[in-house]
Amino acid sequence: MQLWVTEYQTPSMGLSVKTTDMLLLEKSEFQQVAVVQTIQFGKMLLLDGIIQTTETDEFVYHEMITQIALNAHPDPKKVLIIGGGDGGALREVVGHPAVEEGTMVEIDGLVVDASKKFFPHHSEGFDNPKARLIIDDGIQYVKDKQKAFDIMIVDSTDPIGPAVELFSENFYSDAANSLNDDGMLVVQSESPFFNADIIKNVYKKISASFPIVKLYLANVPTYPGGLWSFTVGSKKYDPAEINNPRPKFEPFKYYSEEMHKSSFVLPPFVKNIIS
Amino acid sequence: MQLWVTEYQTPSMGLSVKTTDMLLLEKSEFQQVAVVQTIQFGKMLLLDGIIQTTETDEFVYHEMITQIALNAHPDPKKVLIIGGGDGGALREVVGHPAVEEGTMVEIDGLVVDASKKFFPHHSEGFDNPKARLIIDDGIQYVKDKQKAFDIMIVDSTDPIGPAVELFSENFYSDAANSLNDDGMLVVQSESPFFNADIIKNVYKKISASFPIVKLYLANVPTYPGGLWSFTVGSKKYDPAEINNPRPKFEPFKYYSEEMHKSSFVLPPFVKNIIS
Repeated sequence: MQLWVTEYQTPSMGLSVKTTDMLLLEKSEFQQVAVVQTIQFGKMLLLDGIIQTTETDEFVYHEMITQIALNAHPDPKKVLIIGGGDGGALREVVGHPAVEEGTMVEIDGLVVDASKKFFPHHSEGFDNPKARLIIDDGIQYVKDKQKAFDIMIVDSTDPIGPAVELFSENFYSDAANSLNDDGMLVVQSESPFFNADIIKNVYKKISASFPIVKLYLANVPTYPGGLWSFTVGSKKYDPAEINNPRPKFEPFKYYSEEMHKSSFVLPPFVKNIIS
Repeated sequence: MQLWVTEYQTPSMGLSVKTTDMLLLEKSEFQQVAVVQTIQFGKMLLLDGIIQTTETDEFVYHEMITQIALNAHPDPKKVLIIGGGDGGALREVVGHPAVEEGTMVEIDGLVVDASKKFFPHHSEGFDNPKARLIIDDGIQYVKDKQKAFDIMIVDSTDPIGPAVELFSENFYSDAANSLNDDGMLVVQSESPFFNADIIKNVYKKISASFPIVKLYLANVPTYPGGLWSFTVGSKKYDPAEINNPRPKFEPFKYYSEEMHKSSFVLPPFVKNIIS
């Protein structure tokens, strides 16, 4: 028997990955959580059938959703992560020497449990003394915070199901209020090839609450088309620059000082989406 | 009925694309040539079941396999393309104002015929007066040429079947002999995520015949992992620089002056492949 898991990345395109074992398949209050063992990518986490992260390619996404803002902000002491239940972003955040406290607010405790059980490298940050884990609704959590964080990272699923509100103008406005006067917001903003409409909307909505907004790109092979976008809203500093006097450039597999700058260089078809 | 075409990009990973029509399925002397109509990517060309090019994403590959060398070389009058039967690379080459003659040597006439019939934008360069089309074995064609070209572009299939020899040290040596003293060779060199061994080999073999060798990257969503590499061997000029006094920067959808430089910025895991 051959066992393949297929994600229909769009209604007319599917990525199939050969699996050797189904390690977890459980329904939480919010979604179906699955962990499969694959040949190509090691262990793979899927939420409602959508690939979230794998052991072998996670470095791209987790380095890039965190290190850009951590090195672009001059003094990122307090960092908030919304979502990111697998812990990969938290691991990167608490691993940065400038960070004093990394708070992660994940709505689904089952995702955290699955990561702790099956993804030892993703989840190693949970044990860091700088890490604070809160199982709660990130949207509610952010609502009453005022200038409490230097950086906020939204490591969400696609804008369907529980994550829809994380792509709203109201949420971005609350995010701005919860950040200090030189704060930065980073959100994953989907694929330039397949979700131009989402990128355009996110860019526009974040622009309503932040004076500086920039898009950057990274190559995640298990996401649709292999090219992913992140949008940064910044109150003061240019996110494409290294403003941190104590930047961290290693040991990374995707991020570097050169990659920081070049990830903001956009092909004309991507520039067109946000202009 | 639903009709899907699946390419097994590796033995344990497949990309499936929904199709509405099979426009061509014919066996040539060299390979199976197929053209299908897809919802996601428009018309798609497959050789022996491997996706070569599509109407909607071809701009990335064809701009990037050509414009880098065309703008990095100070005076690219004569350009040779080996392979590239769909004509997309030829269209870009003859469209550059510095080029006086673009010669394309493709082994399989059926691919050219299929492109002329089903891919009008790919194939528009065939009608350009600067274009010269030769149906022949590129390896033999290059053997007896001496300082005949300024740029050679190898737009080959993967290193299996008819293309194996195009990845050999002998061929790269012949390529060097057929180029002028300031010539450049550009080859497609597969995926950094899935073919690190090929990239490493190509880099090493081209280094045996060219003093300057550099790798650059581009995002092709229908190729494995969505990230593709190109290797340049250069006799004199740095391919990462714009040395052409009459560069062409528009109208492109992926390539630009900024993208020229940033495409040579490699993530550490890619740098490691070639170091």
